[in-house]
Amino acid sequence: MIGGVSSGRIAIIGLGLIGASLARALRAAERERARGLSLVGCDQDSNVLQRARELGLVDETIDDIGAAVQGVDLVCLAVPLRETAGVLERLVPRLADSTLVTDVGSVKGTVVEDARAILGPRMPQFVPGHPIAGTEKSGIEASFAELFKDQWVILTPVAETDPEAVGAVADLWRQVGARVVVMEVVRHDQVLAATSHLPHALAYTLVQMLAQAPRSDGLLRYAAGGLADLTRIASSSPTLWRDIFLANRTHLLEVIERFELELATLRAAISERDQQQVLTILERAKAARDALAAERGPRATEIHSTLGG
Amino acid sequence: MIGGVSSGRIAIIGLGLIGASLARALRAAERERARGLSLVGCDQDSNVLQRARELGLVDETIDDIGAAVQGVDLVCLAVPLRETAGVLERLVPRLADSTLVTDVGSVKGTVVEDARAILGPRMPQFVPGHPIAGTEKSGIEASFAELFKDQWVILTPVAETDPEAVGAVADLWRQVGARVVVMEVVRHDQVLAATSHLPHALAYTLVQMLAQAPRSDGLLRYAAGGLADLTRIASSSPTLWRDIFLANRTHLLEVIERFELELATLRAAISERDQQQVLTILERAKAARDALAAERGPRATEIHSTLGG
Repeated sequence: MIGGVSSGRIAIIGLGLIGASLARALRAAERERARGLSLVGCDQDSNVLQRARELGLVDETIDDIGAAVQGVDLVCLAVPLRETAGVLERLVPRLADSTLVTDVGSVKGTVVEDARAILGPRMPQFVPGHPIAGTEKSGIEASFAELFKDQWVILTPVAETDPEAVGAVADLWRQVGARVVVMEVVRHDQVLAATSHLPHALAYTLVQMLAQAPRSDGLLRYAAGGLADLTRIASSSPTLWRDIFLANRTHLLEVIERFELELATLRAAISERDQQQVLTILERAKAARDALAAERGPRATEIHSTLGG
Repeated sequence: MIGGVSSGRIAIIGLGLIGASLARALRAAERERARGLSLVGCDQDSNVLQRARELGLVDETIDDIGAAVQGVDLVCLAVPLRETAGVLERLVPRLADSTLVTDVGSVKGTVVEDARAILGPRMPQFVPGHPIAGTEKSGIEASFAELFKDQWVILTPVAETDPEAVGAVADLWRQVGARVVVMEVVRHDQVLAATSHLPHALAYTLVQMLAQAPRSDGLLRYAAGGLADLTRIASSSPTLWRDIFLANRTHLLEVIERFELELATLRAAISERDQQQVLTILERAKAARDALAAERGPRATEIHSTLGG
């Protein structure tokens, strides 16, 4: 089965932005390689299933999760975080020994906890995953085949996980152009708290503060492009992000507190008119941002562990 | 002279991103309208003057500020905030009665204070201005003619300012495609503190915090596109922004403190697992951000006062 997932039968549970984009990307990869891939799409919304058929994203649509996962090589859960446990409960009775399961949840600690409790002896077949890809839009209409191209997918196998299952899921993501990295669950949740969940918290906070300000109408009208860029992510789905914030609560609170300290340092430097201290903070930031921009060029797509780094 | 500035003789002091882009934009507008415009470029860096000649941005380059402003209809100061006072001191002895002066500084309170002290009886000729345009890059090589197109230019005349001078400067900015609005000095500095200076402070703080975190290497590598967008502005010039932060110190400290309160509210809601409160904050932000995105479409270019709103 290893290496063969992308020429086998795959069920995608949830055809939102991520699930439908994965379907599109697998279709595109299949055409390129002339492989026989069979895609099953499953969604609780019958309109979405109809759209998936109209768009030719999947070969088959099934609204029952148990039926959808029967006889497939791999199941990808692309549902909101809070639905993961419920979906696992519904699929586990019909899960064959040879079927791998992966997910795309933005927080891995809670998913692994749920999976252990629900999958039990089937836990080795489960590969927790998270594609670092997305836009501020959601839903099948926002999906596109290039979403994962050159983006990171983080896999967070645990002690029980079958290493061959990790390899097969990594292959799947590489087929759609992603770069795969393996990371510890806790490390993933710390990294994402700092680089994604905190920035979203700041953007949401800033925008709602500006919107509430007295005479806010005049305020936002004169916003430069910088603010538009900075707050674009505040257009993301509120329920999705409420769930992420709460699922990654401990790590997020840690980085919010660290941010509060850093902001207080800058505020104090401005308050004291400490030109040198203000400049030092700004220069350190610019150097890091420029390095980040340089880093984000194309790079080799290989699994490498950052467990130690 | 009113309405005639753009067919007259204009001196641009400082050929960085803003000054050189203004030169390019006036050139482009002149070609379209077949008007006789004469542009004088002045910069303390002789290499920049040479580049301006090579690029054909100006008709004449003069390194002496006093000589540059002689016999011109309008002088535009496009120098860093901290150089404004020095430039005003050097140009005032050679300033004719009929020559208008404007500037592009990001903070207006300190500029107006300096101008009052230095220009004295010539203050009516000075129109404080601020084009809300720019990129995270700086310098003549980053300049482009379209920089001001559909962007706001805020003019902040004071009690002494000649209303006809305001009209002439507004005309100049409209010639290069900008939308002009008149605002009180204090209101400008409050609006910019909230919509530009605070976002920059947050972006700088976030990036330098991430860069300093333990194992930060792994951190920034997995940053999603959202972080790149959000922190793009942290690539802006550190000295420029240090000066802006300190020049607009009082208003910036006010909005930083308000932001700290808002962030503490979100943090508390997450800490207490208050799903409804978290959702309310996120939904309010999304509504405001979506409204902002809708608002930023093309609109009429007319002066209208927001003094009351």
